[in-house]
Amino acid sequence: MFFHKQELQFSAKPDKPDAIFARRLQEVLGGQYGEITVAMQYGFQAWNSHLPGKYRDLLYGIGSEEFGHVEMLAIMIAQLLEKAPVEQSEEAAASDPTIAAVLGGMDVQSAIVAGAGARPVDSNGNPWQGSYITASGNLLADFTANANAEMQGRVQVARIYHMTDDPGVRDMLSFLLARDTMHQNQWIRAAQELQEEGVEALPVPSTFPLSKEARDHSYKYINFSDGAMAADGAWASGPTPDGHGEFTYLDGPDTSAPMPPPTQPDPRFFGTDAKPPLIDKAEGVIRDKLS
Amino acid sequence: MFFHKQELQFSAKPDKPDAIFARRLQEVLGGQYGEITVAMQYGFQAWNSHLPGKYRDLLYGIGSEEFGHVEMLAIMIAQLLEKAPVEQSEEAAASDPTIAAVLGGMDVQSAIVAGAGARPVDSNGNPWQGSYITASGNLLADFTANANAEMQGRVQVARIYHMTDDPGVRDMLSFLLARDTMHQNQWIRAAQELQEEGVEALPVPSTFPLSKEARDHSYKYINFSDGAMAADGAWASGPTPDGHGEFTYLDGPDTSAPMPPPTQPDPRFFGTDAKPPLIDKAEGVIRDKLS
Amino acid sequence: MFFHKQELQFSAKPDKPDAIFARRLQEVLGGQYGEITVAMQYGFQAWNSHLPGKYRDLLYGIGSEEFGHVEMLAIMIAQLLEKAPVEQSEEAAASDPTIAAVLGGMDVQSAIVAGAGARPVDSNGNPWQGSYITASGNLLADFTANANAEMQGRVQVARIYHMTDDPGVRDMLSFLLARDTMHQNQWIRAAQELQEEGVEALPVPSTFPLSKEARDHSYKYINFSDGAMAADGAWASGPTPDGHGEFTYLDGPDTSAPMPPPTQPDPRFFGTDAKPPLIDKAEGVIRDKLS
Amino acid sequence: MFFHKQELQFSAKPDKPDAIFARRLQEVLGGQYGEITVAMQYGFQAWNSHLPGKYRDLLYGIGSEEFGHVEMLAIMIAQLLEKAPVEQSEEAAASDPTIAAVLGGMDVQSAIVAGAGARPVDSNGNPWQGSYITASGNLLADFTANANAEMQGRVQVARIYHMTDDPGVRDMLSFLLARDTMHQNQWIRAAQELQEEGVEALPVPSTFPLSKEARDHSYKYINFSDGAMAADGAWASGPTPDGHGEFTYLDGPDTSAPMPPPTQPDPRFFGTDAKPPLIDKAEGVIRDKLS
Amino acid sequence: MFFHKQELQFSAKPDKPDAIFARRLQEVLGGQYGEITVAMQYGFQAWNSHLPGKYRDLLYGIGSEEFGHVEMLAIMIAQLLEKAPVEQSEEAAASDPTIAAVLGGMDVQSAIVAGAGARPVDSNGNPWQGSYITASGNLLADFTANANAEMQGRVQVARIYHMTDDPGVRDMLSFLLARDTMHQNQWIRAAQELQEEGVEALPVPSTFPLSKEARDHSYKYINFSDGAMAADGAWASGPTPDGHGEFTYLDGPDTSAPMPPPTQPDPRFFGTDAKPPLIDKAEGVIRDKLS
Amino acid sequence: MFFHKQELQFSAKPDKPDAIFARRLQEVLGGQYGEITVAMQYGFQAWNSHLPGKYRDLLYGIGSEEFGHVEMLAIMIAQLLEKAPVEQSEEAAASDPTIAAVLGGMDVQSAIVAGAGARPVDSNGNPWQGSYITASGNLLADFTANANAEMQGRVQVARIYHMTDDPGVRDMLSFLLARDTMHQNQWIRAAQELQEEGVEALPVPSTFPLSKEARDHSYKYINFSDGAMAADGAWASGPTPDGHGEFTYLDGPDTSAPMPPPTQPDPRFFGTDAKPPLIDKAEGVIRDKLS
Repeated sequence: MFFHKQELQFSAKPDKPDAIFARRLQEVLGGQYGEITVAMQYGFQAWNSHLPGKYRDLLYGIGSEEFGHVEMLAIMIAQLLEKAPVEQSEEAAASDPTIAAVLGGMDVQSAIVAGAGARPVDSNGNPWQGSYITASGNLLADFTANANAEMQGRVQVARIYHMTDDPGVRDMLSFLLARDTMHQNQWIRAAQELQEEGVEALPVPSTFPLSKEARDHSYKYINFSDGAMAADGAWASGPTPDGHGEFTYLDGPDTSAPMPPPTQPDPRFFGTDAKPPLIDKAEGVIRDKLS
Repeated sequence: MFFHKQELQFSAKPDKPDAIFARRLQEVLGGQYGEITVAMQYGFQAWNSHLPGKYRDLLYGIGSEEFGHVEMLAIMIAQLLEKAPVEQSEEAAASDPTIAAVLGGMDVQSAIVAGAGARPVDSNGNPWQGSYITASGNLLADFTANANAEMQGRVQVARIYHMTDDPGVRDMLSFLLARDTMHQNQWIRAAQELQEEGVEALPVPSTFPLSKEARDHSYKYINFSDGAMAADGAWASGPTPDGHGEFTYLDGPDTSAPMPPPTQPDPRFFGTDAKPPLIDKAEGVIRDKLS
Repeated sequence: MFFHKQELQFSAKPDKPDAIFARRLQEVLGGQYGEITVAMQYGFQAWNSHLPGKYRDLLYGIGSEEFGHVEMLAIMIAQLLEKAPVEQSEEAAASDPTIAAVLGGMDVQSAIVAGAGARPVDSNGNPWQGSYITASGNLLADFTANANAEMQGRVQVARIYHMTDDPGVRDMLSFLLARDTMHQNQWIRAAQELQEEGVEALPVPSTFPLSKEARDHSYKYINFSDGAMAADGAWASGPTPDGHGEFTYLDGPDTSAPMPPPTQPDPRFFGTDAKPPLIDKAEGVIRDKLS
Repeated sequence: MFFHKQELQFSAKPDKPDAIFARRLQEVLGGQYGEITVAMQYGFQAWNSHLPGKYRDLLYGIGSEEFGHVEMLAIMIAQLLEKAPVEQSEEAAASDPTIAAVLGGMDVQSAIVAGAGARPVDSNGNPWQGSYITASGNLLADFTANANAEMQGRVQVARIYHMTDDPGVRDMLSFLLARDTMHQNQWIRAAQELQEEGVEALPVPSTFPLSKEARDHSYKYINFSDGAMAADGAWASGPTPDGHGEFTYLDGPDTSAPMPPPTQPDPRFFGTDAKPPLIDKAEGVIRDKLS
Repeated sequence: MFFHKQELQFSAKPDKPDAIFARRLQEVLGGQYGEITVAMQYGFQAWNSHLPGKYRDLLYGIGSEEFGHVEMLAIMIAQLLEKAPVEQSEEAAASDPTIAAVLGGMDVQSAIVAGAGARPVDSNGNPWQGSYITASGNLLADFTANANAEMQGRVQVARIYHMTDDPGVRDMLSFLLARDTMHQNQWIRAAQELQEEGVEALPVPSTFPLSKEARDHSYKYINFSDGAMAADGAWASGPTPDGHGEFTYLDGPDTSAPMPPPTQPDPRFFGTDAKPPLIDKAEGVIRDKLS
Repeated sequence: MFFHKQELQFSAKPDKPDAIFARRLQEVLGGQYGEITVAMQYGFQAWNSHLPGKYRDLLYGIGSEEFGHVEMLAIMIAQLLEKAPVEQSEEAAASDPTIAAVLGGMDVQSAIVAGAGARPVDSNGNPWQGSYITASGNLLADFTANANAEMQGRVQVARIYHMTDDPGVRDMLSFLLARDTMHQNQWIRAAQELQEEGVEALPVPSTFPLSKEARDHSYKYINFSDGAMAADGAWASGPTPDGHGEFTYLDGPDTSAPMPPPTQPDPRFFGTDAKPPLIDKAEGVIRDKLS
């Protein structure tokens, strides 16, 4: 169960409205790596969890914080849109540089659809979608997904930090940056702990029998391009992070298989295949192949 | 430039058709973490790269391998569909258990749309989409995304390995598992090397000035749920992976801000707000507020 | 802020697993009118609200309940999937009617992607999306949207009630039906109260000046089909619900305007237009129109 | 069958082109609540109707009018785009405020893809999609959906009315506003008539046996937030609109159920679960759990 | 304007219900090349047309027929679903081969969402979307798109013809096949006429000055794969269909350009670039690059 | 297998950055008819091909070239974005016309998400999706789809050619225009060759027995609109392109079928149907129809 409190975790109050920045902030609310994504991602990972205890508590504990961040951002965006202009025709814009600027940077649907309100969309107006989230049931894979989500999220917040100089907005962003720092650290640490405790190991999934994998091909770097410098990387020689092998480097594939012959499905799928010519040029007729 | 060779990197030939398994394999071809995703993801990361040298060569080198895996899977799926049945009505299915089974497991569009062919969709028929990929320009974030993609991909291949006992299919899957093992190891190692070389560091992005982050909140675990076991995790005490702090644990938020008052945008957005009543009950008329 | 408690509002425990029913239940979790929709819809309506007081409190109060319903359904689905079979090839299915049945009814991605877990998708595997929700800032419109959402949701729950006879599942559904009954009643009553208090009125939006509307056309039923029975409805004669007019019935349009001439945009858009023939048949050459 | 007449129901002719406004108008053509939505929604409700007679005639009669509105809007948009500029580079825009303004407000795809033409998309360029419509077969639910659609649509038209001062455009909008007024009134009246005639009743669906619903929970307002003012609403006490109960108010949930234990699916889904540690620290080996 | 008549163009009445076939038929209603696509495509081409006269009349004349086909298919699907079963649990399916078959072949949302009704989706339940259509304003390009749409559509109808043996359904399909035959022929003929009349010519768009095209590369087949047989095609030698050149064949690219150096955007985008190492190993500190 | 070479087929280097034009170019990279579409379309057609030999070699040969064009465009876009500005607030834009212009024309996600990089999206930021491609297995249909794709693509490139005057960009566009000219010609010629060789013929699919088609309706133009000029077209009289008939013209439908009665599905779908009134007005009670 979720309980709501009509307070925010941190101040979310702009010094003044800025409809252009409101659109930018939508990325962090409803984008691929926005707050809706992490809130739902941690939620589904918790609900699908096969492990009781500290890992599931962690998912519940942070997931709920993220739902609060969704709210902070929505509230902030609504305030940034508070003075969004109504007149937005070509004529108005051509004669008023401010309107022209706003038109260029504002999400038009925040005006027309939401009446100067926040929406569950990204900064280009693409609606948030369930396929943004990851919840596989394998915690080492999923915590890596979470670490990535927090990194991408912090990169985006850092980018938009310089797209405003509003003290109130920057104040909220400095808080979100801090929480992203925390969550990056935490998911990386949690992924380590899974391995230290032997709950999961590399390669993920660790319980698939390695004997069923084509082990000859498990540690070879195979270069399918013509740049040779990748041979110098730590991924091309030395021990592998999973502790089971040594990296080697190949300057191209060392295996090959012939392309199988084209398929010949049932003729009633009406594909073009190697049947005899339809048109008998001698007779000048089309043969009715299927009657 | 890409050059194509009419050979496959590894054998992709089923012992016999299996239209049901073909649908499952679509996940690994066109799903969120399928081969189209990793091929395009490594491609865009290379094209957007700001660094010449070994990291970009790595992206080009593996990205091209993945385009070949797209091809292997498409070719395999076409063969698995080669004997897909044409008659698929309710009557046929009710009287023939094999047809009923195929109907239940097969992607109907592979028959109707592709004529027994592969498609750029996942195992539920959702089309592949560009929002599956990640290419932020920040390599530590992106290599973490790549490690996750290879983990999720290997989990999925491992799952479908047990959904077939066809030796030809399992042979190809054992190869894909091995390559996923390699690529997991490689992206993890590459992410380490970025940090060892000081090209990027935690927290990502490492060049955003920490002084602009609300550092008081950067290392606190804040529990928004009521399970207390997360306090026992390595993410709740001890040094943080970024090397800059110590984790602490809070049993709830230690900050709060009042909910800002509701916004009052231009009345011409026609939202419901705190205006005087429209209906003057004494007079029994609706006041025309905007004339 | 949202706080989470590791309890459910009502029992969500099936008597036994049923992977087929799990897929059906996904509609109520992640479909157009599922619990994610209403939770997010009431949330965004609250965050975008321009009115303090009881209406906003109502949105917060119920929105948070709905997030708990999201959780109940996800937890229920994970349990329904607990015994989802792993072997799912054509051969296995053709020889085992139970596997064939499961294949036919189960969401394959719940196995391959989520490892027997719930996902933010509908019963056909379409990901939930932000464009399912409505939050216009106009409360009479939005409460009508909410009433509709609760009606559609209750219709769907009623339908799937008969697709299971599991006592544990039916118990949870009987609770959800009751809450949908409450929420239908409540949004209808709240929409009435908005009008009773004169906060909004019909037609929505009530503050748009009726003088700017083409009032001659505001209460005419215009029949564009050839069935005449619609003339018998209460929408074809008598007073209109907004209290401002009388319905009339027309057996076809009473207005008409000529189709404007085709547009002639800049020739550099390279559309096909009424330019002189490109080919001068006398000269046998193509004229280069744009040089 | 549909028959087309090369006339419009009402004048759709701008006084002058305005590419910026054209984009805004796309919302009303191809958005969530645009004319394509209502035309298709009423069509599918008619085609799926289980009732002959006046209700189906109503759906056919209005649905066809809406297809004509789709045409009016497309024709209007094409004319608004007629003078859309071709040069749109950064340099051109920086030196010409009109081009800068147009760039900011215009849908670039209307130029590049449609050659200054209308498209089946909303004002952010999101393509219209089938999931916007509602046609459940239950007419009371569906007419409520229709009333909502006409309300949202009228709110949007009212908003964009003030984004232009073109007399020709406003003329068309004043007509659309009037038709939306009619259709709001009509669907509300039709929903009343369904109830008056006993064809459907609240709660929807009215034929689901109330005895199978957990009636104890059917009329309680349960507050999951901390604002107490919702207790003052008409939805918290007094008779319920369905005529079967009395609203009551609770300041929090009065039921609770324990969170079920985590699921334990087949280990071949390779989730992270409560299995014995993979790594035996004493022996220093990873145990191969599945062979 | 569109006017509706409550008759169908051709009989659309199955001899008996078949919920499995109903799903297949959804492809022809709401798929990429279904009737909604062609109806909307011809509509938008007409509305965006820059040419008055016979070509626009053609678009209007056929577009309206296609809206009637949308209706025929929806009506047919509703009838095919009329006896769709309600009980669809795992238990029911495992014990009843008919239910198992229906589960495998039926669209579950047609039951849960539409109550045994048609929906604007394809045979996998993906909603129809506006990006399926093509209306560029260039008639030769668009008529080629139309010819393709009618070909793909007829291929799909031909495929599903063999998925039923219901005489009523086959009767309707035989009519749709005939109309697709007509429309294929007609769009091909119309594309020819555009060229015969010199309204458009190859290459499309014909009014773009060929002098601005890199004409050296306009007629070369360049083989980027290793199969040599394409050299034998009529596309590798001989005159080109546009009448302006001769095909030639190259066994690989004859041009090349160096890969431009990686980009160096503003450091405040926080990408990973060739900046000096962040970590000064001698000093053991991270340099704060941006302060 | 695909092999990559770190060279481009043609120069892709702008003379100077232009973030506005970068967005336009995204259409040609990731739009409905962009390079990703043709690369994937030709790839899937090759992989699904049922014919060995020259036609499949053709698909492989060109498909690989198109993957290289994807790369050229991505590289070009990254360079066009190289100087994309970071400050983009309302205040900055209102005071600086260049920033206002950039805001209006630039894809904000290219900054926030990709850090000044290319993305697999169109010019409105809609992600590329698998449903853009066509690969039916019928080569005459598919080659017609390919001809259309190259026509639409060339129209779009021609349009954006005039949206820049950057010599470097125009140079690349002149090359792409030439290749589109080649590919238009080639697919048209290949479609002719399929017919000349009798591999496929009109109507597509040519192997469906014409005897099963309702031949009476195969060559009639049926006018469902009121413009009579379409009777003058070559599609209304004279021989049909498939060589099997003569076009005729009808000024309206010559067939009609009654609308089937509304369906009556299982009452447990809870649709509104012709059941006896729920409310017995005499008794004043609602009848419980299903117990």
